[in-house]
Amino acid sequence: MFKVGILGGGQLGRMLLQAAANYPVETHVLENDDDCPAAHLCRYFIKGNIRDYDTVYHFGKGLDALTIEIENVNIEALERLESEGVMVYPKPGVLRIIKNKVVQKQFYAEHGIPTAAFAVIHSRNEIGQFAHLLPAVQKLAEGGYDGRGVQVIETIAEKNLGFDEHSVLEKKVRIKKEIAQIIAVDKNLKTALYPPVEMVFNKDLNQLDYQISPADISEKLLWKIEAIASAVVRNFQSPGIFAVELFIDEQDEILINETAPRVHNSGHHSIEAHFSSQFDMVWRIILGFPLGNTKAILPSAMVNIIGSEGHSGPVVYEGLDALLGIDNAFLHLYGKSETRPGRKMGHVTILSTEKQDLIHKANKIKQALTIRSRS
Amino acid sequence: MFKVGILGGGQLGRMLLQAAANYPVETHVLENDDDCPAAHLCRYFIKGNIRDYDTVYHFGKGLDALTIEIENVNIEALERLESEGVMVYPKPGVLRIIKNKVVQKQFYAEHGIPTAAFAVIHSRNEIGQFAHLLPAVQKLAEGGYDGRGVQVIETIAEKNLGFDEHSVLEKKVRIKKEIAQIIAVDKNLKTALYPPVEMVFNKDLNQLDYQISPADISEKLLWKIEAIASAVVRNFQSPGIFAVELFIDEQDEILINETAPRVHNSGHHSIEAHFSSQFDMVWRIILGFPLGNTKAILPSAMVNIIGSEGHSGPVVYEGLDALLGIDNAFLHLYGKSETRPGRKMGHVTILSTEKQDLIHKANKIKQALTIRSRS
Repeated sequence: MFKVGILGGGQLGRMLLQAAANYPVETHVLENDDDCPAAHLCRYFIKGNIRDYDTVYHFGKGLDALTIEIENVNIEALERLESEGVMVYPKPGVLRIIKNKVVQKQFYAEHGIPTAAFAVIHSRNEIGQFAHLLPAVQKLAEGGYDGRGVQVIETIAEKNLGFDEHSVLEKKVRIKKEIAQIIAVDKNLKTALYPPVEMVFNKDLNQLDYQISPADISEKLLWKIEAIASAVVRNFQSPGIFAVELFIDEQDEILINETAPRVHNSGHHSIEAHFSSQFDMVWRIILGFPLGNTKAILPSAMVNIIGSEGHSGPVVYEGLDALLGIDNAFLHLYGKSETRPGRKMGHVTILSTEKQDLIHKANKIKQALTIRSRS
Repeated sequence: MFKVGILGGGQLGRMLLQAAANYPVETHVLENDDDCPAAHLCRYFIKGNIRDYDTVYHFGKGLDALTIEIENVNIEALERLESEGVMVYPKPGVLRIIKNKVVQKQFYAEHGIPTAAFAVIHSRNEIGQFAHLLPAVQKLAEGGYDGRGVQVIETIAEKNLGFDEHSVLEKKVRIKKEIAQIIAVDKNLKTALYPPVEMVFNKDLNQLDYQISPADISEKLLWKIEAIASAVVRNFQSPGIFAVELFIDEQDEILINETAPRVHNSGHHSIEAHFSSQFDMVWRIILGFPLGNTKAILPSAMVNIIGSEGHSGPVVYEGLDALLGIDNAFLHLYGKSETRPGRKMGHVTILSTEKQDLIHKANKIKQALTIRSRS
């Protein structure tokens, strides 16, 4: 049977494995934690560090293909495996571009893909030279993840808040909407686009409140978004699945924020709401089957289940009963035994023909559910 | 975490585990074959014989709940576990009724549930006394499975074809349609009915050709079917999920054929076609959550992928590419490495608003796919 390895064993790996069980594929997972979300749903679990050259090389050697569920992996090992005939999704060259925020940003600029104005700096002292970019967001070239490695600089006076490192200084966009566009690319570089989704943020908590699919945007903006996402993957020249995150600014200009070269949080709704989910699509791509149907069966909303502030330790969910009493709400818990503030513990997808019903139920779910640690 | 054991590790177990990954549950599977379809998707796999008293008892002791994916399990061990506080779905008493075809048939008769006329016999010589039941189907009380243990007796002259054992001699029904009704029962014995499905048989091969959901029947027949299925589970007095198989005869009378006290082949379409699948429903019942929505999202057809005659050994699928090129066809392979004639290797569900489109695509899928053994 065709042997495929996944680097990383988090919830994205878990959902990849739920979908893999439908296909003729032998699954292998590499992750440091042998009780991670993906550990018990694969054929072979190997405990090891996905950032270590030898570990990744030995894991991948002898497999037919590899994919990732997180970018922060050993790219050198993937390059060697690729040169030795193992198919890697996405190509390691794409990971090189994306992993470094300076390189990623320059990639967009070089290929005429609209993105916020920026400068590349190496110390906080340089911020003063780029006053025209302020207020700005400074992002570390490497090592940032999940909100870390990002700093807002409002004025020159605040420049000492900045990182004294190789980074991107990017003009802050006045955001009207945040959009994500999932796009699948097969081995012949044929593409299939999911309808873009809209992220609704809670400004008080500065976190995703819920996500609505499809995004409520004009046809003209839809075309622009599809054109940008298509240009990104055309220039990557790699099969795989990609989540392109975009801003619509107050002038209705579209600017690319960043791209994830893998299944993504913004595509979770596709499990129930679309004919072919983002996870299903990955197996079609890797196994060389035709791309699936990206159309929506019904409109949907998605709510993340996030570890609450002030709670660390063995997780307890309260309100699952009320949540599961809501018609057409689909629960996905990720099997993490410990909660931490901000940790993604699961998500809920809601299907409905009516947008107001989706929003109403998304709020009901957030009210129903409490995530706390065992006292 | 709540610990649930599944007796049996076939495809029904596999699909139960795909659904379990969304819920807060620790899964355990007992099966003799450590490369069975469910072996690699559970938290703990235990190799052992589900028909052996000690094996089942030791497997179940220490778990919070048990369920089955096949009836042929050690009921005595389940009864002891039940008496010691382990929740068992369905109750072992229901397994006793269903496992023995004589007892099952008498159960329907006692509770006024319409079923074909029958006699209980102990030898083939008794067939002559029941000439009024011929042509008839003779079914062994115990030990029959998947077509074995069933013999058609057309005339008295054929009585020597009959089994010389404890069995049911049942008047052969002139079948217009075969229907399956899945019904879920929660801990408070509240029920939820899926729309009945219709099985379309290939008369030449004497096997299921495809299945259509919802069944094409009048509202009056629908009510009768729902009433019969409800009466069956009301008399079982057990939580769980049940598949009630029924005949509609040429006079539009409805007769119960048999009941499976578990997830069932006739409910596979519910994974994609219904808001809550039969597999999702099992976890809701066991974990004490509200029953899910049994409504269809879209009409569907389901085609089984069956091992071809003349092929035994390592399986090779041909035509998966063509199959997966059909819009809205969902493949489910069960991970069985060896094919055998008649073995269930997988299934395909098709979604469409149009019945003709469903039938067209079901036929296209059957033509596209070849299942053979490696030569």
